[in-house]
Amino acid sequence: MKRTERIGVIVKTLSDTPGKLYPLQYFCDLFQMAKSSISEDINIAASAMEATGSGFIETISGARGGVHFVPDTTQEAVAPLLDELCDRLRDPARILGGGFLYTSDIMYDTELVSRLATLFAVKFRALDVDYVATVETKGIPLATMVAHQLHRPLIICRREAKVSEGSTVSINYFSGSYDRVQKMSLSRRAVRPGSRTLVIDDFMRGGGSTKGIADLLAEFDAEVVGAGIAIVSETPEQKKIRDYTAAVYLGDVDEEKRTIDVRPNPDIFK
Amino acid sequence: MKRTERIGVIVKTLSDTPGKLYPLQYFCDLFQMAKSSISEDINIAASAMEATGSGFIETISGARGGVHFVPDTTQEAVAPLLDELCDRLRDPARILGGGFLYTSDIMYDTELVSRLATLFAVKFRALDVDYVATVETKGIPLATMVAHQLHRPLIICRREAKVSEGSTVSINYFSGSYDRVQKMSLSRRAVRPGSRTLVIDDFMRGGGSTKGIADLLAEFDAEVVGAGIAIVSETPEQKKIRDYTAAVYLGDVDEEKRTIDVRPNPDIFK
Repeated sequence: MKRTERIGVIVKTLSDTPGKLYPLQYFCDLFQMAKSSISEDINIAASAMEATGSGFIETISGARGGVHFVPDTTQEAVAPLLDELCDRLRDPARILGGGFLYTSDIMYDTELVSRLATLFAVKFRALDVDYVATVETKGIPLATMVAHQLHRPLIICRREAKVSEGSTVSINYFSGSYDRVQKMSLSRRAVRPGSRTLVIDDFMRGGGSTKGIADLLAEFDAEVVGAGIAIVSETPEQKKIRDYTAAVYLGDVDEEKRTIDVRPNPDIFK
Repeated sequence: MKRTERIGVIVKTLSDTPGKLYPLQYFCDLFQMAKSSISEDINIAASAMEATGSGFIETISGARGGVHFVPDTTQEAVAPLLDELCDRLRDPARILGGGFLYTSDIMYDTELVSRLATLFAVKFRALDVDYVATVETKGIPLATMVAHQLHRPLIICRREAKVSEGSTVSINYFSGSYDRVQKMSLSRRAVRPGSRTLVIDDFMRGGGSTKGIADLLAEFDAEVVGAGIAIVSETPEQKKIRDYTAAVYLGDVDEEKRTIDVRPNPDIFK
């Protein structure tokens, strides 16, 4: 295989599995080439990724070392993504009454969701979390893709304890969106004590369910260290959690005028 | 940017968004190069993908044409994937009683799940479906990744009708796994009449929930044309649906001897 082709294969392999470490020897065996050539291939692949701002290739030295891919993004990529999300949310056909919007088509559009996932993976990369957690259901595709990009296991809190989860820990919490007490449960096997978790969800109003996840994880002596939410309602201003990052803010939904007020989070990378 | 680097960028761009069509002009603008050079770059990228069996780059001609990436896999990649899945399932610590196994750690391991997703995307590519559907919860990460690889929207059937889904259609069906009637509901907005859907799920015993999805979609005049299930129980032999593909088969779970009988589907690519 020629260098040009080898670089294609290296980029595909590394970027398919962000965070996964490949020893240099893996590519030496694959291409039947010496380490010096492979090193040079990787340098070229790395400069291509950096030039477009789509990620970088990190080298970990030592006997257990190797290379892995770290996704990245740029202001130039994020601005149109958030604008697109806002534009789609502004469609008055989404208005369901009671201030609710239909958003499943957006949250289940894996192309848009994968771009949002990159945004959150980049935003929270430095936290070096052990898990990415969400509560069923609509945020699961986004949380799945963030977990993949951070190369961390996913945790899904359930509304009901299921027999297939084994013994579980449950909490009750107050959901402002539904104006009632809700339940959340998690398998005893799901979380290591002392671990650090990033919460990812599709929507936040008062922050009840994010706070619920934090309370549930506290039962495992585990900590929530950040939260990335696709759509955060501007009201109530006072949320039940302090540390969260919205992709976009949802303001007034006027059922009479059929208008939806939504804007990108201008401080997303601050 | 040199050719070697351009090829890295082309591979990353196309393989990040399988099925998405990029006009040649997109890369001409990105690199400030003539179409003839870009065409040659794409040919090299294509031959690199094909040489490793990880996919191919398809050219669609005409005014609205362009190139897109189609994921692929090989027997050499699938055999170790299914062996790894079986090995992990054989761990006796998974036995929960009542024939249930704890599998959430596997279904929420996005690296393994993304490889399984490629397997199902390749298996069902020719069906050219309009949607990928699942029922909450444990199969959602797998279904998300299959939907992404097939470049199709995801459908998630809910156990309960939620206010954020707007008006919904519901059915009741008998679940053999839970030995009771269960409910499944889907937003009226979720499915176009006349569409074709692939069902993806983590586990099947009698096929009740897959049949449930098919019955629910029939209410939308939509059709299930295939089903890919990560783990299929060997009993009962008679399933409620005929057309399905298992990644692995689960046989006897012996609680006394602490053994789990599981084997790869030998006919996965037949």
